[in-house]
Amino acid sequence: MAKRNGGAPATAESMASKQREIAVSEFFLKNRHLLGFDSPRRALLTAVKEAVDNSLDACEEAGVLPEIAVELEQIAETRFRVTVTDNGPGIVRNQIPKIFAKLLYGSKFHRLRMSRGQQGIGISAAGMYGQLTTGSATRILSRIKHAKCAHALAVQIDTRQNKPAILSDTEQDWFPTFQPVNAEGQPDGEPQPSKHGTSVSIEMEAAYQRGKQSVDEFVKQCAIVNPHLTLHYSLKLQSKPETGNRGGGNLKPETGNLKAEAEPKPSEFQVSGLKSQVSAVTYHRAVKAMPKIPDEILPHPHGVELGMLMQMLKDTESRTVRSALAGDFSRVSAQAALDICTRAGIEPKTNPTRIAHHESEALYKAIQETKLMRPPTDCLSPIGEAQILAGLQKELKADFFTAVTREPAVYRGNPFQIEIGLAYARPQENEGLGSEEPVRVMRFANRVPLLYQPGACAMTKGVIGVNWKSYGLSQPKDALPLGPVVILVHMASVWVPFTSESKDAIAGYGEIIDELTLGLQECGRRLSVFLHKRHRELEAARKRSYIELYIPHLALGLKDILKLNNKEEDKIVGNLKKMLEKTHLDL
Amino acid sequence: MAKRNGGAPATAESMASKQREIAVSEFFLKNRHLLGFDSPRRALLTAVKEAVDNSLDACEEAGVLPEIAVELEQIAETRFRVTVTDNGPGIVRNQIPKIFAKLLYGSKFHRLRMSRGQQGIGISAAGMYGQLTTGSATRILSRIKHAKCAHALAVQIDTRQNKPAILSDTEQDWFPTFQPVNAEGQPDGEPQPSKHGTSVSIEMEAAYQRGKQSVDEFVKQCAIVNPHLTLHYSLKLQSKPETGNRGGGNLKPETGNLKAEAEPKPSEFQVSGLKSQVSAVTYHRAVKAMPKIPDEILPHPHGVELGMLMQMLKDTESRTVRSALAGDFSRVSAQAALDICTRAGIEPKTNPTRIAHHESEALYKAIQETKLMRPPTDCLSPIGEAQILAGLQKELKADFFTAVTREPAVYRGNPFQIEIGLAYARPQENEGLGSEEPVRVMRFANRVPLLYQPGACAMTKGVIGVNWKSYGLSQPKDALPLGPVVILVHMASVWVPFTSESKDAIAGYGEIIDELTLGLQECGRRLSVFLHKRHRELEAARKRSYIELYIPHLALGLKDILKLNNKEEDKIVGNLKKMLEKTHLDL
Repeated sequence: MAKRNGGAPATAESMASKQREIAVSEFFLKNRHLLGFDSPRRALLTAVKEAVDNSLDACEEAGVLPEIAVELEQIAETRFRVTVTDNGPGIVRNQIPKIFAKLLYGSKFHRLRMSRGQQGIGISAAGMYGQLTTGSATRILSRIKHAKCAHALAVQIDTRQNKPAILSDTEQDWFPTFQPVNAEGQPDGEPQPSKHGTSVSIEMEAAYQRGKQSVDEFVKQCAIVNPHLTLHYSLKLQSKPETGNRGGGNLKPETGNLKAEAEPKPSEFQVSGLKSQVSAVTYHRAVKAMPKIPDEILPHPHGVELGMLMQMLKDTESRTVRSALAGDFSRVSAQAALDICTRAGIEPKTNPTRIAHHESEALYKAIQETKLMRPPTDCLSPIGEAQILAGLQKELKADFFTAVTREPAVYRGNPFQIEIGLAYARPQENEGLGSEEPVRVMRFANRVPLLYQPGACAMTKGVIGVNWKSYGLSQPKDALPLGPVVILVHMASVWVPFTSESKDAIAGYGEIIDELTLGLQECGRRLSVFLHKRHRELEAARKRSYIELYIPHLALGLKDILKLNNKEEDKIVGNLKKMLEKTHLDL
Repeated sequence: MAKRNGGAPATAESMASKQREIAVSEFFLKNRHLLGFDSPRRALLTAVKEAVDNSLDACEEAGVLPEIAVELEQIAETRFRVTVTDNGPGIVRNQIPKIFAKLLYGSKFHRLRMSRGQQGIGISAAGMYGQLTTGSATRILSRIKHAKCAHALAVQIDTRQNKPAILSDTEQDWFPTFQPVNAEGQPDGEPQPSKHGTSVSIEMEAAYQRGKQSVDEFVKQCAIVNPHLTLHYSLKLQSKPETGNRGGGNLKPETGNLKAEAEPKPSEFQVSGLKSQVSAVTYHRAVKAMPKIPDEILPHPHGVELGMLMQMLKDTESRTVRSALAGDFSRVSAQAALDICTRAGIEPKTNPTRIAHHESEALYKAIQETKLMRPPTDCLSPIGEAQILAGLQKELKADFFTAVTREPAVYRGNPFQIEIGLAYARPQENEGLGSEEPVRVMRFANRVPLLYQPGACAMTKGVIGVNWKSYGLSQPKDALPLGPVVILVHMASVWVPFTSESKDAIAGYGEIIDELTLGLQECGRRLSVFLHKRHRELEAARKRSYIELYIPHLALGLKDILKLNNKEEDKIVGNLKKMLEKTHLDL
């Protein structure tokens, strides 16, 4: 066994000789749990999530109603092939290697506009994980509009340099094709090819398991908050999945309620000598309208720090400070720009690249002191109250539904919008969703379901922070309230502040917590009204049934005293009941 | 207001034109909450932490007993200057800009050896945050051994390119100097200059606040787990800190118990027209022995994934597969290397760079099937049970102390070691540390205190996962146990799997949770023995005092029957009490 260091004390010189640059890909290779690849089960979900996010973003940017196929195929005991195919605009040949095999590369990072992807890390990270665990390359097929053929590439990351390595590069006569299935998972009509689109395929160490953090759950929730999406999901397993006491891999789009899962009816057939279970499901789009394509906005001056302001003044193409302020920021009119300059004691025609440090500080201070309109919010595309209600109603057999889309707000200069949905079901109708269980919180960011790290998420903290006792739910100290309730939380923003690169939880900026709280309280108040009314009704019914018990005895007494016949007795019973019904609301 | 995009649908070509590389510094600038700079309060702590980590690592590598000064100076309402000075080996001039103004640069990332820093991000990130919020540069003074003078540099990051920009670069006759203070915060002896060392100074938007997540707490805990460190901490505030109902900025090294804090006695004097409060404290080293300098190790084959193995075979300097296996990995003898080749069906003399994919897979499989010694653990430097006990005893006035240093274990090929300390105090003696409060968990990774994100940390989860009821503490479901208990948890590893770049919480790998659980259970069993014994003693005392109540009445009765005088009555009372004392253990 060789040692690289005998443990001798170092000197400044010997230490200097060891210092070197670390490629971002090396960094994330060693820290792959930061990207969501810390366990085989989570890796499978993360890979699907990153690919689906990209597909949805691409379709929406190109104005195409998205159709996406997610295929999971188990190719060895601990190995899966994940393939995600879309009908998006496709990717031009030269961009393919960098998009799929270079970390921190993309089109979404530098702009202020709501999208699912934002970092330029996800799909390359999935490929890098596949490469690390199986040595395989990421395989991409892509066809753009009016192209003669599709490009087929196999790429890997040179992790030392964070650069793509192209292993194969051919042209192919390929069209993305989608096979809808019916409720039994059987083919339903002819597969429909699209004229353009992209397919990405990654082999990786992975594990499939059903449950709240599964790919099944992800695609289901994806369909809920993206009603314009048609999603085909198929799963081919070699052996039974690890489900504890549950059965095989059958998928059902609508489970009726949130926890009960239908009995599996997997199709079984032989593939290459191995017993396979194949199950498939199609989530058809519910609406044919595309969500509004959000606008890209300029940064708002109140969200720009001093150092960033200095950088922007250095980089601007404007020739005067005044025009730089008005041209490079949102919500700064020519007049407002003039006001800021005056307040800062700076000549408005000064060349912005010649601003000194203390002048920048004065300008920064003047900006903070100047009242400006809040950032424009057409960069956001909320789900909408109607859509949230529809999604919840599809998910849950409940007695009460409500939804709130808050007005847009701003954190650190970034516009964002909070939406809350809430459903309440009578305990007996939703087995497992008991009144003594914590409520279920479904979290979404820019229409992407968040399944991991609930405890670290501002959304969970927001729910815990509300006093649910005042709305009629019991709630242990510092914990989620209890009850047969589902709470859906969505944050739409030009920049979602995730707590890690795996994008599972949202950082708790004060403004975000405030908006969450207000939205949750509004839903809570409505729930409280419903619960109160229901309580009154139940109470009235209880009293009525109590009195009803005595009506026959009363009638019998009256019959005796007044010497009535049976018919008259029945009439009295009937009349008394009618009286009772008329007055029950006042009881 | 200008818009950059009218919201028109994009094409593959228009999208391609927008795709570009994202510098890692741009990425972290936008995601600075990932690095621990999401709030002004946390930013202050993170900056101190990163600088102190670097200083301690440098001192230990160079075999120098560390002496470090942490100075916080409030220079405006929301602005602080953070200065950390050490007596380490210093940094050679050419490395200074990259170390302080380039993310992902350093000497610790590529080696397998325990150290506080590992990523090459921290101190540059602190400088970048300072630059972003104040426009200032990071100022460094550094002097190496036998140098004629010190180098003084001011550097910033060019965030677009992740490259350092040097703003000034001079030579200076500077020696790092340390002023010890006494318990009242007054100068205690002459300041001692060191012949070499480094000082880094950063101005930033920040907020000072006392409490569990404060710099005060960090330096205190740092001193506990680094008994070989002398640490001078001074705080200069312009106005009262935000402490809720607490007073000013006085610091006390020993608070007697964990929550009560001494009344502040700040020195007040005038600095540049502003009223300042200065307080200072010196934590003197308790031991003069350096901790063992941990060895650097080679990767263990069982922790190397297939993709990594392929990369290593491609990069090796060895000429045969057999010698590559024996030379580039730890715990692979020449014989084991031969066994692996044979098992994989590969000729041992094959050139490792010519190994095909399927051969690598065979090799990988053969490695997994070959029994090898666990990785060497001299790369770790645990705190040790005696030191943990000493630290806890200094911290807490308690009735019971215990500590466990587990044997080293391995996760993903990385050796690690878990240490647990536990202290139990009678509630009445520790005001605020009540029996109905959750226990306090102090977390450390490679001797660095972790103050943020306890909920996301495997250490907290480990404590919650143990059944403390069986050890005599009450514990709500899925929560920390309750009681007047402090639990110290330390993980030492060549690579601590933090859940984010801010290094506040540890990812929950199964092996780590297992080791935590075993260590906690051992401490729990010992606590249980103590509590049981104490319970018996209390019970006996209760019974005795009950009987004692009746002794005078008994004596009175005897006096009456036996016609005794008062003196004889007293004697009887005395004798009965003696009898009781002799027998109380059997009650």
